[in-house]
Amino acid sequence: MGWGDLGVFGEPSKETPNLDQMASEGMLFLDFYTANPLCSPSRAALLTGRLPVRNGFYTTNAHARNAYTPQDIVGGIPDSELLLPELLKKAGYINKIIGKWHLGHRPQFHPLKHGFDEWFGSPNCHFGPFDNRALPNIPVYRDWEMIGRYYEDFKIDLKTGEANLTQIYLQEALDFISKQQASQQPFFLYWAIDATHAPVYASKHFLGTSQRGLYGDAVREIDDSIGKILKHLQKLGISENTFVFFTSDNGAALISAPKQGGSNGRFLCGKQTTFEGGMREPAIAWWPGHIPAGGVSHQLGNVMDLFTTSLSLAGLQPPSDRQIDGIDLLPAILQGKLIDRPIFYYRGNEMMAVRVGLYKAHYWTWSNSWEEYSKGIDFCPGQNVSGVTTHTQEEHTTLPLLFHLGRDPGEKYPLSFVSDEYQRAMERISVIVQQHKVTMVPGEPQLNVCDKAVMNWSPPGCEKLGKCLTPPKSDPKKCFWPH
Amino acid sequence: MGWGDLGVFGEPSKETPNLDQMASEGMLFLDFYTANPLCSPSRAALLTGRLPVRNGFYTTNAHARNAYTPQDIVGGIPDSELLLPELLKKAGYINKIIGKWHLGHRPQFHPLKHGFDEWFGSPNCHFGPFDNRALPNIPVYRDWEMIGRYYEDFKIDLKTGEANLTQIYLQEALDFISKQQASQQPFFLYWAIDATHAPVYASKHFLGTSQRGLYGDAVREIDDSIGKILKHLQKLGISENTFVFFTSDNGAALISAPKQGGSNGRFLCGKQTTFEGGMREPAIAWWPGHIPAGGVSHQLGNVMDLFTTSLSLAGLQPPSDRQIDGIDLLPAILQGKLIDRPIFYYRGNEMMAVRVGLYKAHYWTWSNSWEEYSKGIDFCPGQNVSGVTTHTQEEHTTLPLLFHLGRDPGEKYPLSFVSDEYQRAMERISVIVQQHKVTMVPGEPQLNVCDKAVMNWSPPGCEKLGKCLTPPKSDPKKCFWPH
Repeated sequence: MGWGDLGVFGEPSKETPNLDQMASEGMLFLDFYTANPLCSPSRAALLTGRLPVRNGFYTTNAHARNAYTPQDIVGGIPDSELLLPELLKKAGYINKIIGKWHLGHRPQFHPLKHGFDEWFGSPNCHFGPFDNRALPNIPVYRDWEMIGRYYEDFKIDLKTGEANLTQIYLQEALDFISKQQASQQPFFLYWAIDATHAPVYASKHFLGTSQRGLYGDAVREIDDSIGKILKHLQKLGISENTFVFFTSDNGAALISAPKQGGSNGRFLCGKQTTFEGGMREPAIAWWPGHIPAGGVSHQLGNVMDLFTTSLSLAGLQPPSDRQIDGIDLLPAILQGKLIDRPIFYYRGNEMMAVRVGLYKAHYWTWSNSWEEYSKGIDFCPGQNVSGVTTHTQEEHTTLPLLFHLGRDPGEKYPLSFVSDEYQRAMERISVIVQQHKVTMVPGEPQLNVCDKAVMNWSPPGCEKLGKCLTPPKSDPKKCFWPH
Repeated sequence: MGWGDLGVFGEPSKETPNLDQMASEGMLFLDFYTANPLCSPSRAALLTGRLPVRNGFYTTNAHARNAYTPQDIVGGIPDSELLLPELLKKAGYINKIIGKWHLGHRPQFHPLKHGFDEWFGSPNCHFGPFDNRALPNIPVYRDWEMIGRYYEDFKIDLKTGEANLTQIYLQEALDFISKQQASQQPFFLYWAIDATHAPVYASKHFLGTSQRGLYGDAVREIDDSIGKILKHLQKLGISENTFVFFTSDNGAALISAPKQGGSNGRFLCGKQTTFEGGMREPAIAWWPGHIPAGGVSHQLGNVMDLFTTSLSLAGLQPPSDRQIDGIDLLPAILQGKLIDRPIFYYRGNEMMAVRVGLYKAHYWTWSNSWEEYSKGIDFCPGQNVSGVTTHTQEEHTTLPLLFHLGRDPGEKYPLSFVSDEYQRAMERISVIVQQHKVTMVPGEPQLNVCDKAVMNWSPPGCEKLGKCLTPPKSDPKKCFWPH
């Protein structure tokens, strides 16, 4: 989902009454980012509080390549990483993930081995292989074992777009919350649904209800579900004791728009890119009785901050034996403070850009290659900013392209290199970037090797269901990441 | 000002708290249009309830040219046109225009000859000749006579952007409202400020206060002023008896962005064009106690509707001896009804596009000529939709380009000509267009002839101020309209 998909952020159909109300009851973050313009590294960053280049969710196979976690990826979240649920456990929290894990699907990466107590959902995205029985369909797990597979047991009708998955995930959330409330147990629920990801789906009740087509139907269903979750918390009397944060893992995938992709408002480009459209996210904090209603924050935030902020809420400190990139947002959320911190925009192994205050400096620009672009793969459809949305990897490390995001949120007008403003801003930014670079210790890259043998052929539980498949012989290869 | 300049429409700096509150207390129109992508014809349409092609505010000098009302234009609003204040007079209203008139500056076009009782403001825009004494600076009138000129007596500092004009216009508005309230007189106030038009200005108090630079400062000052006007109505106890409507006369002028131009959100292109960015406008209706707070309407609306709606509020009927294009929006505003009606997008003498429901059909596309574009005149900066943002006038009258504005508000993805959806939609649209065309009787074009002799050399009152200038010999010529 993108920044521009919510009514409160200016979607012209204004079809998200529940999220808009969540914002009016809570706090809207206008300058909130993901740590990576792609789902899997973004989610790893959220759960570790660390940039993907530190936690291993990146590739060195080629320069500045986005890498995700498909079925044939060999890597996953390293044991050495400390995940939010692992830490929350120490404060007595029960942790559940509902939906897409995407931090590795092999046994050692299982979410219940990384701090979660419960899981209902899938290790990978629901896309591919689309019920091609020659390859395994993605399994759906309940806790340790699979209980079925997408397309086979959890239907997604690719023709009509009908699927009941968001409803199933909603019911799981409501049940979990009820159970925790009944047992007076503090809980962490990571409601990581995969709806709005292509192939886009919605349940029957929502199909055809949006002015925006199928994608809008899916947004409406998510919006409705979030409304139900918030109302459930209120009905159970625990809303004033429950911190809720809504955000997305990357910008809308414009390559799939309009039928299968959403909107990043007026921001440049979309998912896969380090322009604002790829990384600025809708974000709303909600905590009645604590967060002042109708608040708006210009705090520069990041999904990694949810790690540190959640620990803070639980009375815990982030680990001190490693670099944590997320900051505690509570002063911004509860007291309206503005904490000075930069935002780094990474693509794979490269810091492409940095935001400091209202300035954003691009050290590298790239949308995708001419070769990919000529195949119709376009991350910036209808947008073309000369020298900015480049189809060759352009290095600007000696003279970064600088934008003022207040005057120019669409990144269309680079500041003149000879202006005083450029000089002043870059002086400040250069120090921050240099400090970041010299202290950066990249983690072991996890997304380099692919092997068809590691696909979800025979997940735990498959034998009970008669759904085990025979893997091919192992043949590890360098993964090919074209973008 | 553009659609995307308001926080409530997703401007990322969210700096319009008063307009946002006006929306939350009133009704937001998401599908509201101007009648022309340029100021002067748009304002003529608002005051007559008629398309510019009917009321004469267009040119036939060249095909599909935008034409406005600079100092050397010979034409203006014809006497045969009936203006909103002329009609409201019959119901006992006192009518005042504050700000830019732009319906002709020669004596016969004076607003007090067309129904207004009072005027404080200028006949033309504050742009040009920028204190070049070889040509007259634009006069500022109080009622029948000029009281000074821009730059000379009403300062605009082009270097710092400082000007006190919006504050002066605000005070005029507050005083007028107080006076009418005291005398228990029903009133119509047309607060037609020219701020946010280039050269952009703001008063000292607002300079440097916006994240968006000077343009944002101007928006903040307008926002603040509107807040003060609404509060004034409340303080005087007449808010429940006063209908207020906020809108703009055309999309943001992207050619002047980012310093001198605003944002049309995710809509395509800007001022001068018949894409959504040129003609979809921010719009808010406010009438406490009558309009349900927080309402949102998808009613297709147009500035021309303000003519008919205002008459309806005053218990009057629109004239029956001529074609009126504006409709009465009160059923939409007060009862939430949706009235089925098309929106026509004109550029000069050509119907470029039409919107019916969520479909928009382009019969002609043109941004501007290659020749102008090569000079750096760009109405679609950073945007380029192949076959849509064309630099030659492309005729599509036999096979219009069709967009679904719900799924594709950015007009990036024309529907396939061979799709059932295209066939079904165009069947409906064709009937509406045909009916529109066969019944269209264009008015006498007023914006064809230019003559330096008619400039504001010696406006009434100039002699008292010693500010009369000598006009050159009359030399009428065809005006040149490049866009």
